[in-house]
Amino acid sequence: MTTDYAAQAEQMARRARLASRSVAVASTRQKNEALAAIADALANQAAAIKAENARDLDAAAKAGLSAAMVDRLTLTDKRIETMAAGLREIAAQDDPVGQVIEQSTRPNGLDLQRVRVPIGVIFIIFESRPNVTIDAAGLCLKSGNACILRGGKEAAFSNAALYRAIRSGLVAAGLPETAVQLVEAADHAFVGAMLKLDRWIDLVIPRGGERLIRAVVEQSTIPVIKHYKGVCHVYIDEFADPAMAAEIALNAKCQRPGVCNAMETLLVHQAQAGRPLADLLKAMAARGVQIRGCERTCAVFPDARPAAEADWEAEYLDLILAVRVVDNIEDAIEHIARYGSAHTDAIVTADPRRAEEFVRRVDSSSVMVNASTRFSDGGEYGLGAEVGISTDKLHARGPMGIRDLTTYKYVVRGNGQVRT
Amino acid sequence: MTTDYAAQAEQMARRARLASRSVAVASTRQKNEALAAIADALANQAAAIKAENARDLDAAAKAGLSAAMVDRLTLTDKRIETMAAGLREIAAQDDPVGQVIEQSTRPNGLDLQRVRVPIGVIFIIFESRPNVTIDAAGLCLKSGNACILRGGKEAAFSNAALYRAIRSGLVAAGLPETAVQLVEAADHAFVGAMLKLDRWIDLVIPRGGERLIRAVVEQSTIPVIKHYKGVCHVYIDEFADPAMAAEIALNAKCQRPGVCNAMETLLVHQAQAGRPLADLLKAMAARGVQIRGCERTCAVFPDARPAAEADWEAEYLDLILAVRVVDNIEDAIEHIARYGSAHTDAIVTADPRRAEEFVRRVDSSSVMVNASTRFSDGGEYGLGAEVGISTDKLHARGPMGIRDLTTYKYVVRGNGQVRT
Repeated sequence: MTTDYAAQAEQMARRARLASRSVAVASTRQKNEALAAIADALANQAAAIKAENARDLDAAAKAGLSAAMVDRLTLTDKRIETMAAGLREIAAQDDPVGQVIEQSTRPNGLDLQRVRVPIGVIFIIFESRPNVTIDAAGLCLKSGNACILRGGKEAAFSNAALYRAIRSGLVAAGLPETAVQLVEAADHAFVGAMLKLDRWIDLVIPRGGERLIRAVVEQSTIPVIKHYKGVCHVYIDEFADPAMAAEIALNAKCQRPGVCNAMETLLVHQAQAGRPLADLLKAMAARGVQIRGCERTCAVFPDARPAAEADWEAEYLDLILAVRVVDNIEDAIEHIARYGSAHTDAIVTADPRRAEEFVRRVDSSSVMVNASTRFSDGGEYGLGAEVGISTDKLHARGPMGIRDLTTYKYVVRGNGQVRT
Repeated sequence: MTTDYAAQAEQMARRARLASRSVAVASTRQKNEALAAIADALANQAAAIKAENARDLDAAAKAGLSAAMVDRLTLTDKRIETMAAGLREIAAQDDPVGQVIEQSTRPNGLDLQRVRVPIGVIFIIFESRPNVTIDAAGLCLKSGNACILRGGKEAAFSNAALYRAIRSGLVAAGLPETAVQLVEAADHAFVGAMLKLDRWIDLVIPRGGERLIRAVVEQSTIPVIKHYKGVCHVYIDEFADPAMAAEIALNAKCQRPGVCNAMETLLVHQAQAGRPLADLLKAMAARGVQIRGCERTCAVFPDARPAAEADWEAEYLDLILAVRVVDNIEDAIEHIARYGSAHTDAIVTADPRRAEEFVRRVDSSSVMVNASTRFSDGGEYGLGAEVGISTDKLHARGPMGIRDLTTYKYVVRGNGQVRT
């Protein structure tokens, strides 16, 4: 059985590698045609897609999945239209492939360029939301990559239906069908076998919970870019404008609590820990936020539950907020270094030197001054559609757009130069 | 024993992480002072370094290592001066840390910057040549990283002596001693334990043979950038100038055969496979190169030995050359895709369309047109001192200079913006 998986996985990976060589040199027009054709196919096949989605929803109901989970799985006409619109937006983006990043003429006359090229073959592993199937395929295609997609088993029928739309779009545009492949086997062993094929696959992007990501990182010999958790902080500095601080903190926690760039821990300079903090926490509570605070927080806001160590590390993805009063900015920075996930951290302050110290010392993919952590997002950064937010440091950090699905090569043009 | 290693490795890694937070914000001046101080220490401690080196050379002789190996291990006054000079050159390079890579003002008024920052903690595993200890430490320091170095056991005493020079330089400049640490344990289990510490170490760079690199890739949960082999090609196209082709081919094979960017396989368009090829191979043979050729090569140059499959895959690092006659450029590109290591591949041609097709389709870290593969080098590219040549596609590809030892973070400055 294991041998079967290894052979099947290798066959899939080799096909992807072969397809990638065509996609890498496909013209911008051909890639955009494919994206438009897939968008059309989604519209044309919407009824079939919803029928297949209904099979997943049935199974989800029988399996007793939560209402939130079922909602994430559901494909409505609106959501199908949004997927199609997303593909058209990707088509409208500039093509990163072939861009000259740098050029110089060397002393010996050699013309040296660093040119953007596709990464090659990308293996994307994700859970739950079926629209990732379309988003990921679109981004990989536009950036000239072949991809292998493996969605959550709860969305198996939906993903298969979406994949049929993808395939018809590829064929219509004259691109290899294997430019996008879907892993249908639910077995972890198949994914495990795939993760060893660094000869054919250039990058793995796991999107999902901690357990999935750890499992991928431990098994993979292929480079991995992780979209890990977001334990994001807002630090209200000694010199913060209290009104601005409150607005930012409320926005960062409450505007969309279930996403990775929502604030999970509020740090407050002791000078701001009196009335301003009490008012802020009242406003939080009024929006349904449960407060878990350090001793000084509980003293100011008795409705707070005492925080434990686990609260500083927690990514709640919910209307729960950990709050800690700190003596100074150094302690705030120290707390973030110790408990943060290097995702997004913000300071609210009117003092430029405090702002710059925070910016310099906080080692996160995004550091904000006087802005909500919720801006840590590909669309907000002007990167266009986003594959996800990398919490890694290598290759791509923060929101990953299509440019991050490329690498570069050096191109040297001479007229016979040799090394002496 | 294993538990001891795990604990020791973690302690070392945590110290590196702590030190990295200081090195990351060290001023350019302080870092340059450290580099100068280490260079001075090398000069002052030269006698002691050579004495320790002699102990390694003794052991090498007793162990029966080859003359070439012993030569690689030997530290002469000249080589010590070269190491020191290398550090002074690194000090003279621009500091990449803090550079603003991109800046934009978003529609909502947010100021967005992508800023260069150190990667953090880098674990470098290398074999044989002790000067890598100094080069690697210097490059990591200047780029604001802490590093953990693990050299070859044949150079254990030498590396320890060089490390003492490094440490005195760090102390003199007021940087943490643990900004550079040396792994002295020869046991693979220690390295294996270190490779799991992705919580504290951000990057592993293994430099050495295939076996070392595979072992690292398989065990590591930390991102790896590999410096793998160089199976480099020169393709003499139908429209090549034969004199230019010969000069480039001879240079690429013979100028320094033992390095990764030396040509290993020569591909020749059938139209160039008559007299020009025979003359070229005679010239190669006159320089001591052993030719291993396909049938058509052997027909033209009977002194050639028939090539086997293994010859197309071989990295000889010696005066041996595999030669294959191809029907057309597509077959040349196909051969490179199949047998190459994506390091450096060159075409010699006077036809711009052939040149561009080769450049477009060959997926290597460096692609040359009418220039020797020997130019694939950090110094030649103007990148300054080189950590090595990455054969990977992610983060850094081709020659890695100090800029490649950095990553970036997003810095967002607002005046109270929140997401709606």
